[in-house]
Amino acid sequence: MPIALLAAPLLALLQATPAAAVPPAPSDALPADWVTIPDDEIVVFTLRGGGTVSMRLAPGYAPAHVANVRRLLAARWWDAGASVYRVQDNFVAQWGDATEKKPLPAGVVASPAAEYERPGNSAVARLSKADPYAAWAGYSADGWPLAGDATAEWVPHCYGTVGVARNLAPDTGSGAELYAVTGQGPRALDRNIAVVGRIVDGIERLSALPRGTGDLGFYATPEERLPIVSARLASELPAATRPRFQYRRTDNPRFAAWIVGRENRRNDFYTKPAGGVDICAALPPVRRAPDAAGLQPGANR
Amino acid sequence: MPIALLAAPLLALLQATPAAAVPPAPSDALPADWVTIPDDEIVVFTLRGGGTVSMRLAPGYAPAHVANVRRLLAARWWDAGASVYRVQDNFVAQWGDATEKKPLPAGVVASPAAEYERPGNSAVARLSKADPYAAWAGYSADGWPLAGDATAEWVPHCYGTVGVARNLAPDTGSGAELYAVTGQGPRALDRNIAVVGRIVDGIERLSALPRGTGDLGFYATPEERLPIVSARLASELPAATRPRFQYRRTDNPRFAAWIVGRENRRNDFYTKPAGGVDICAALPPVRRAPDAAGLQPGANR
Repeated sequence: MPIALLAAPLLALLQATPAAAVPPAPSDALPADWVTIPDDEIVVFTLRGGGTVSMRLAPGYAPAHVANVRRLLAARWWDAGASVYRVQDNFVAQWGDATEKKPLPAGVVASPAAEYERPGNSAVARLSKADPYAAWAGYSADGWPLAGDATAEWVPHCYGTVGVARNLAPDTGSGAELYAVTGQGPRALDRNIAVVGRIVDGIERLSALPRGTGDLGFYATPEERLPIVSARLASELPAATRPRFQYRRTDNPRFAAWIVGRENRRNDFYTKPAGGVDICAALPPVRRAPDAAGLQPGANR
Repeated sequence: MPIALLAAPLLALLQATPAAAVPPAPSDALPADWVTIPDDEIVVFTLRGGGTVSMRLAPGYAPAHVANVRRLLAARWWDAGASVYRVQDNFVAQWGDATEKKPLPAGVVASPAAEYERPGNSAVARLSKADPYAAWAGYSADGWPLAGDATAEWVPHCYGTVGVARNLAPDTGSGAELYAVTGQGPRALDRNIAVVGRIVDGIERLSALPRGTGDLGFYATPEERLPIVSARLASELPAATRPRFQYRRTDNPRFAAWIVGRENRRNDFYTKPAGGVDICAALPPVRRAPDAAGLQPGANR
């Protein structure tokens, strides 16, 4: 049983843009469908050992909490003493100040007003079926997954979603303590917590960490924590080493065809299309920006 | 911002049986709701270093493939040369014979007839909302998650589900190459692949492994593979060291209340219940069997 054959079928599941598989060309993105994310909306966390984790900020969905994150970045708050201190299997990796002693920088609001949903419906594309947590699920034009009901919408808790850890309600958290989802989308957190972004690169540097053996996956000893070396806006990094990312626009017939393809996988491997897909299993594509030669140095599916 | 407070709210999300939180007592299991899984339906994989991963077999859903697994176990097929050779982030960990050279033992059928769904509807409890991949989702009396339509049912691909890797259709795989889901439930695989079990203990020994850097998460070099030391039915292990597990029966009003609680989290942390839940975020509880003293040595959520 050759590995190549074993492997090939499963590839289709994770390819944002299937190659020779169904659905064909109409779902392929045109070059103009890829839009570069502003450098000042990307946060790069550098971990001990040099690995980086990049997050796209979501200022449109939690503006006050994202403003806090910007103030924390400006104050270099995560550069000294912060760490990844909690890794709970099939749930989250969480980082910030495990010592509970670091004061917040001036200007950071300890608990802004809740930003758990916003009025309206900005989705330009929707999945064909409702999901168990919302009346609808779909996509903003600029590449955010969305869920919503008749009057409000929010960014759902999917793999890679970054939220603001908080105390019991009505606390909303400051943004100093963040977590990234590293398992089945814990959608019950939707509308109960502020979402400030999405990991667009390096999630495996969080998801493959040793699980914490303390309650809730907290590391039992300080030595287990993974120190954060620095946190920077990409715009603060030297242009030569600055990572750049692009989202795929969703307001076009090619993306509509992409959705159909995700809902109805059919190729030499998949013989029974489902007719639907979960929003967390069909996250809008983000990729590394092509370099000057037009090459594609890497891609986040 | 005390860690204890930060932590406590998130606990509720993953507790199969919330302690003091809502929903209260009616959702608690009675002692008789916990049923011990037969020792010969538990497979214990021991990995290099001594860590174990335990799987509950699903003979009722893929009998021919489970029969193959039993023959492979009897032949000690995984005891020599087998390894975990693929770890793809947010997807699967896969194990078996990476060398592609090991012949199947006598009696193992290379590609049994497809067992991707079965007729009927044996669910005794259902979630209140349909999911995107099926007309309904719910639970068998003996603790399997199920999804189905008007005429058929199947075990969905959720975190911890174990399936049979295969080549392109119509191959169905032998069961020698297995994978466990370690990310968002890849439900598009439902009805396209045979499910032979569910990891009930030790999933973190697979999910926290280093990600493979080869295509599809295959380890790029043989040295990266994690050898399997042995694979045994629990019934083959000495009674003193034999792990024993229990599933929670679902055919009672207490479990119905448990479902309502999962669909409507409301406590000091959750202020906005969703009114629904995904089957992969509400997997039926399995726990370690209490020891002779009646204590609960540990629990798998």
